[in-house]
Amino acid sequence: MNESFMPIFFDTNAIRHFTEKVFERIGVPEDHAKIAADVLIEADLRGFDSHGVARLFPCYKRIKNGLIETNPQIKIEWLTPATGHCDGKNGLGMVVSYYAMRACLARAQESGTAFLTVNRSNHFGIAGYYSSMALPFSMIGIAMSNASPRVVPTGGTTGILGTNPISLAIPRRGEPAFLLDMSTSAVSSGKLDVAVRKGAEIPQGWVYPSVKPFLDSEGVVPMSVLQYPLGGPQKTGGYKGYGLALMVDILSGVMSGANFGSKLAASKKTDTEANIGHFFGAIKIGGFRKPEAFHGDLESLVQDVKSSPLEPGIEEIFIPGEPEALNKQKYGQRGIPVLPPVLTKLQMMAVELTLPFPA
Amino acid sequence: MNESFMPIFFDTNAIRHFTEKVFERIGVPEDHAKIAADVLIEADLRGFDSHGVARLFPCYKRIKNGLIETNPQIKIEWLTPATGHCDGKNGLGMVVSYYAMRACLARAQESGTAFLTVNRSNHFGIAGYYSSMALPFSMIGIAMSNASPRVVPTGGTTGILGTNPISLAIPRRGEPAFLLDMSTSAVSSGKLDVAVRKGAEIPQGWVYPSVKPFLDSEGVVPMSVLQYPLGGPQKTGGYKGYGLALMVDILSGVMSGANFGSKLAASKKTDTEANIGHFFGAIKIGGFRKPEAFHGDLESLVQDVKSSPLEPGIEEIFIPGEPEALNKQKYGQRGIPVLPPVLTKLQMMAVELTLPFPA
Repeated sequence: MNESFMPIFFDTNAIRHFTEKVFERIGVPEDHAKIAADVLIEADLRGFDSHGVARLFPCYKRIKNGLIETNPQIKIEWLTPATGHCDGKNGLGMVVSYYAMRACLARAQESGTAFLTVNRSNHFGIAGYYSSMALPFSMIGIAMSNASPRVVPTGGTTGILGTNPISLAIPRRGEPAFLLDMSTSAVSSGKLDVAVRKGAEIPQGWVYPSVKPFLDSEGVVPMSVLQYPLGGPQKTGGYKGYGLALMVDILSGVMSGANFGSKLAASKKTDTEANIGHFFGAIKIGGFRKPEAFHGDLESLVQDVKSSPLEPGIEEIFIPGEPEALNKQKYGQRGIPVLPPVLTKLQMMAVELTLPFPA
Repeated sequence: MNESFMPIFFDTNAIRHFTEKVFERIGVPEDHAKIAADVLIEADLRGFDSHGVARLFPCYKRIKNGLIETNPQIKIEWLTPATGHCDGKNGLGMVVSYYAMRACLARAQESGTAFLTVNRSNHFGIAGYYSSMALPFSMIGIAMSNASPRVVPTGGTTGILGTNPISLAIPRRGEPAFLLDMSTSAVSSGKLDVAVRKGAEIPQGWVYPSVKPFLDSEGVVPMSVLQYPLGGPQKTGGYKGYGLALMVDILSGVMSGANFGSKLAASKKTDTEANIGHFFGAIKIGGFRKPEAFHGDLESLVQDVKSSPLEPGIEEIFIPGEPEALNKQKYGQRGIPVLPPVLTKLQMMAVELTLPFPA
């Protein structure tokens, strides 16, 4: 491990408070600042550190440059009993997405399901935050987003699609929820960063073509390093990951009126609105089957999967969401890991805003 | 290519007529026989020959053994305006699924979306048949199914999950539709069969562990050859394919009251109902955005993807559904390819039922 990328641990509440204050100082209303900070901190707690407080500085910079609206009048319009559209009014992705998902949950109480496409949004952090919002309501939550282009379509040689994440959260009885939160690329950008920082061998099928990925001064692999879709090259099934990535872009981008494909390079430009698109949905379990029967069978499926004899070196077969629940337990006690380049940015904002930085 | 597995081409209409007659002779009502035959023939036309008339004999055998109900009184119950449940009453998977999807389409006209879980069904052929039913209605169609266990959960060593397919069909303007129709395993069983028949090298990450897959007397790779989920082993992203396969089993099996996980071995047993589960949905495009605007942007995204400079040896970047549309054109003219072991079974049924077999 390169020492300049060894994380330093910070008290979760202190970092959360600092994050809220940064948002407030640059014009974000208090309730919105709390939501945005919660999404970022939750990402760190679950172990998605590339989507946690590491995202605060990019938000800060875009707000300072007038590229994100700090107090958007988000507009939600239902076109049918169960479907509609949300104009994010160029607000923070975390805030727009929170309100869109909340609207889906309310609407699904009546209709059984509800879906919203969202345009004029910004980077929303982790998809799994919004899908998880469905869990207390005995609903299945769905969240997708398109993202800036760095994934090669099968047969092509340039980054046209984003890592376009899909998340699906399904409640479990007294257990961490089933929480699928995956990029449709072979590997998420965050996991790629971690592997390069550790100097680990990069598996075939992660980056396109077989270049050696490197880190920029922020300790992340730059967008110029292209990625394969899930499945890697064509022969190992990459056309399926490509199909999923394209599906996410159609649902989130095309069906919302947001940017899509290469146009999403806008989200990295310093002179134009990102216009990222999302797709959210909620589905009531009781709209299909009695929840008690559902939960009994779900735990029986979980036991079935976990009963498979283990591969050498494996300690447990995890259900999606379980590794993140373990991270949350660990980081909740130990504090949140922050990389030195991210820490530098946090301190820079503290100075610029004359905010005390948590020791 | 092993010569005993070289296909023989048959006139599509003749095979279709024969397939309908076989179903009718063993007690399937005429309208149901037409539906079931259409699903199988469509699979062959699209190039999914493992799911085409090759599936007629297994259906025939199960019906003859009293394991499938030939005239099921399928029961659909809507529990909310947009969600409900279908009891397939152990009918043919193709027939049950056709009626379930038709009910979703009618319901989505009013609600914007509609979803049904289905239990007590049987092998439904290709998922893409049902998702495609949404296309003429300017809707997005969704179809999933669980299947008999042969996919290893990440970290495990036995087949617990099926190849659990996901299909999503999205209309395109004057073009073949966007039609994702993929197993959540690294490779579909059908593609694996074809590769083994050709004697092609099997890519790492297709079968688990690295055994050499072989063919049984029917020219297919037996269920005892286990498969990796999409993404292959853990390090190349297999945990994502495993997560998707588990998601399909929860939505199709657990949420419908069907069998799930290892219990689906029932679908291959000769003394018990299969109780396979499906999940169907329809989403109205106009419920989110004006269809004209949607279609304009969709074609612009397609052009964007196709504009990526090609990898050496690649002639075109395909949108999901395009390769199958080309197959349909080709086989529509040339006829449907039938493998010798499948042909033997068709001839056997012709003799048993005293039906003329198409020359």
